[in-house]
Amino acid sequence: MTFPKNTWYVACTPDEIDGKPLGRKICGENIVFHRGTEGQVVALEDFCPHRGAPLSLGTVCEGKLVCGYHGLVMGCDGKAESMPLQRVGGFPAIRVYPAVERYGFIWVWPGDAALADPALIHHLEWAESPDWAYAGGLYHIQADYRLMIDNLMDLTHETYVHSTSIGQKEIDETPVKTRTEGEQVITSRFMDNVMAPPFWKANLRGNNLPDDQPVDRWQVCRFTPPSHVMIEVGVALAGHGGYEAPADKKVYSIVVDFITPETETSHWYFWGMARNFNVHDKALTEQIREGQGKVFAEDTAVLEGQQRNLSKYPGRRLLMLNIDAGGVQSRRLLDKMLAAERAHDEARAQAAEKVAA
Amino acid sequence: MTFPKNTWYVACTPDEIDGKPLGRKICGENIVFHRGTEGQVVALEDFCPHRGAPLSLGTVCEGKLVCGYHGLVMGCDGKAESMPLQRVGGFPAIRVYPAVERYGFIWVWPGDAALADPALIHHLEWAESPDWAYAGGLYHIQADYRLMIDNLMDLTHETYVHSTSIGQKEIDETPVKTRTEGEQVITSRFMDNVMAPPFWKANLRGNNLPDDQPVDRWQVCRFTPPSHVMIEVGVALAGHGGYEAPADKKVYSIVVDFITPETETSHWYFWGMARNFNVHDKALTEQIREGQGKVFAEDTAVLEGQQRNLSKYPGRRLLMLNIDAGGVQSRRLLDKMLAAERAHDEARAQAAEKVAA
Amino acid sequence: MTFPKNTWYVACTPDEIDGKPLGRKICGENIVFHRGTEGQVVALEDFCPHRGAPLSLGTVCEGKLVCGYHGLVMGCDGKAESMPLQRVGGFPAIRVYPAVERYGFIWVWPGDAALADPALIHHLEWAESPDWAYAGGLYHIQADYRLMIDNLMDLTHETYVHSTSIGQKEIDETPVKTRTEGEQVITSRFMDNVMAPPFWKANLRGNNLPDDQPVDRWQVCRFTPPSHVMIEVGVALAGHGGYEAPADKKVYSIVVDFITPETETSHWYFWGMARNFNVHDKALTEQIREGQGKVFAEDTAVLEGQQRNLSKYPGRRLLMLNIDAGGVQSRRLLDKMLAAERAHDEARAQAAEKVAA
Repeated sequence: MTFPKNTWYVACTPDEIDGKPLGRKICGENIVFHRGTEGQVVALEDFCPHRGAPLSLGTVCEGKLVCGYHGLVMGCDGKAESMPLQRVGGFPAIRVYPAVERYGFIWVWPGDAALADPALIHHLEWAESPDWAYAGGLYHIQADYRLMIDNLMDLTHETYVHSTSIGQKEIDETPVKTRTEGEQVITSRFMDNVMAPPFWKANLRGNNLPDDQPVDRWQVCRFTPPSHVMIEVGVALAGHGGYEAPADKKVYSIVVDFITPETETSHWYFWGMARNFNVHDKALTEQIREGQGKVFAEDTAVLEGQQRNLSKYPGRRLLMLNIDAGGVQSRRLLDKMLAAERAHDEARAQAAEKVAA
Repeated sequence: MTFPKNTWYVACTPDEIDGKPLGRKICGENIVFHRGTEGQVVALEDFCPHRGAPLSLGTVCEGKLVCGYHGLVMGCDGKAESMPLQRVGGFPAIRVYPAVERYGFIWVWPGDAALADPALIHHLEWAESPDWAYAGGLYHIQADYRLMIDNLMDLTHETYVHSTSIGQKEIDETPVKTRTEGEQVITSRFMDNVMAPPFWKANLRGNNLPDDQPVDRWQVCRFTPPSHVMIEVGVALAGHGGYEAPADKKVYSIVVDFITPETETSHWYFWGMARNFNVHDKALTEQIREGQGKVFAEDTAVLEGQQRNLSKYPGRRLLMLNIDAGGVQSRRLLDKMLAAERAHDEARAQAAEKVAA
Repeated sequence: MTFPKNTWYVACTPDEIDGKPLGRKICGENIVFHRGTEGQVVALEDFCPHRGAPLSLGTVCEGKLVCGYHGLVMGCDGKAESMPLQRVGGFPAIRVYPAVERYGFIWVWPGDAALADPALIHHLEWAESPDWAYAGGLYHIQADYRLMIDNLMDLTHETYVHSTSIGQKEIDETPVKTRTEGEQVITSRFMDNVMAPPFWKANLRGNNLPDDQPVDRWQVCRFTPPSHVMIEVGVALAGHGGYEAPADKKVYSIVVDFITPETETSHWYFWGMARNFNVHDKALTEQIREGQGKVFAEDTAVLEGQQRNLSKYPGRRLLMLNIDAGGVQSRRLLDKMLAAERAHDEARAQAAEKVAA
């Protein structure tokens, strides 16, 4: 297994379960999401206990899934609640996955439900504060989710993959610093006195700042396992303190990346951007979302090509350069998490054996 | 093997071999169908003994298949008949499958040819009598053919899958009765004094009957192994005897289903409807065909989703409720048939061994 | 392995690497082609040693591949040359494949580079002489490359596969003669005093000859292993010496076929036609190319159907008739070549073991 299961993943956005169920495979599990009787989020195995039809092909009626085949009504607790002319008391229950709605996303815990504590979901300041605006999207990518983490923890690739939008030569020329702080990997790059690339010029204009003057630019990538990458990005008019410049001299955003494994070689990529300037300008929000969508689509071809190559040559070792330190240190945290999960699973299996004996 | 091979299956309709060969996989066998020298139906292995090209890519010339690659002329008996400049006497023969044209369909026997008796094809009254009109179509479905049998032997699903055409709440509320009579499973449901759903309203109008009055509705499903389901369906103006009402008070049809396995997880579904009212109204025939085609297409998504779930969780047991009795009893007949076929195959293998020794 | 690797194959045409890299799988190897620093052709493993991205997704800059992910600059010798802020001295090299540009094609040697001698590329007179005009195209076909050799070494199929263009009944009626001469198989057919089929009528008009008179027609197919088939084809006004007729009484071409294995069951088919009449008429060149493209597309369906049949019935033996002698003798040369290659590989492995011990 290359992904931990005892953790919270972003599963979908609220609009995807607006009045209808959504079937989505996460960490190898077929899951159906819908809004329950109290409007709460419910995540169940996507398998009707009657004849195995996917419940996601059915409908939602008064907060309960109704199987689209023979009308079995499934309770939010995974127990069949009713079915025309049937007594459902003896029906086998289906699996319930812990699910939470928070920060504008639906989160799911695909592993051991006993461990699922909503307090473990990382706090996201930008998602709660009125000082921030957010917009994003979803891509389905045929590559190991870890290749996306590598991608985001080394922004050198912007120069090549995103040359017409956010790439610029100075990214290449400026070394990064990478460090692990507890359960977080941070890799940062500061470029002083450069010209802003097109995407940032547009943002400067979006905040009523001149786009023809030198700027100080920064990128601070923060990975928290297993699959969140938040990137502070921005430019300030040169000489006003860069990252620390006052709000009226800079444009500043957080690139938001939730990377949710589907299988060992595919993932759901929830990308977005949160900004704290001109937050009520909806046209700007949409313009940024569109621009970012185009930029992030450029990564897809590279990652899927890389995945095909790695699948063809599984034994081949890759290089781990200083620019790769972000990805390398991220995988170290991931491996630690995976080892802990294996230990937990084994302990549980042994305890179960003891009970049986 | 999940399907018997020593039996007659519907392979195609005459229009599919009109002036050209047709290649179709049936029960795992690649078969080419065409019209032979006497106009008769011929079913051969779809493999040219010369270089292995599919004969179905060739042409039919004076009732013989001509390989589209090098012009080998294949006799209707599976023996090469001629080839430009060649002596074909020593060419290996290809397999001939017993095939019969009857009731407007081409039937094939994919198993032991020695057992193929055309008298075993079930009699279909509606296909021969001038009092009936028939029209239908063909769907290719990625699901075990037995899932389609289950589907058709439990019409409870109409309420959910076909809610806008033939479904109605009363189907759910009315219990079915299921019984096995010899080599047939019969499951029936009678709903008295209900309003007709849209499909039946249209049929009432098609027979110059009012569509705004209560009706008695019935469904009598008859399965004969391995794969025929005939369903008597109809509505009569309420209070005139229902199923037994006189012809001028009801509309009555037979839903015709021939379910032919392609592989273990896919099948050819020949669907249609025979009616005995207003049989010369071709516009009505076409209207019914179109309506039925839309209704039956709705089943496809459910069955293919169910198949994907069952393939993912092969060990999982499904429920067998009273509404499933039709499918369950049908599978019992099927299993008996499969056991008999295995016994026959083993006996034949032993006899062959004896001869060899 | 069904194809030799120690040999030259046509990999692509120059226009395919015009200003950009080309990724193409040949004999199971993922290869990237581009024009190097001196304008020479370079063939490298399509795998960036940094993180495994396909180099073919990158760009060519001053004759060097630049990885589209993080900007690694790959030297034409397979050694990383530079990368922003990195020392690349210790980077592992990637494989270099011998590649040559000649006769208007890019040739690659996918096997042991030590054996690659450009002098081994067959001489192609028509490609160098101003007396000839050439045009062609490329098809990607899902079939063992040897099925294409069989196809081209037995033109009997023209009567059936290409009945509306180059096929005619007399092909069938005229026996072929096949012989192996050293490293070449030659199969020939001469049809005297026949009417020209449509494709040849058009060519007669293209050379200002009448198209309504009987002609002598010939086909001389020459196979040289592993995968070249050159076919001399033409018609002369009847009674002027046929194949030997003076230039103003005939139209004469060479059908050019380079068949490059991609995998065991797929290949790249470079087809074309060289003619030595009316060579400056570009409209005629284009007309012939278009006509030939349509004719050769007709083979695709047959070969892919044949491949599916052979994959389904791998044990089945095919016939080897006199008309198949071209293919049969060609495979004999191929098998000899494959045996020699296996012997060479084993000797090399033993020598390597000795060195190690």
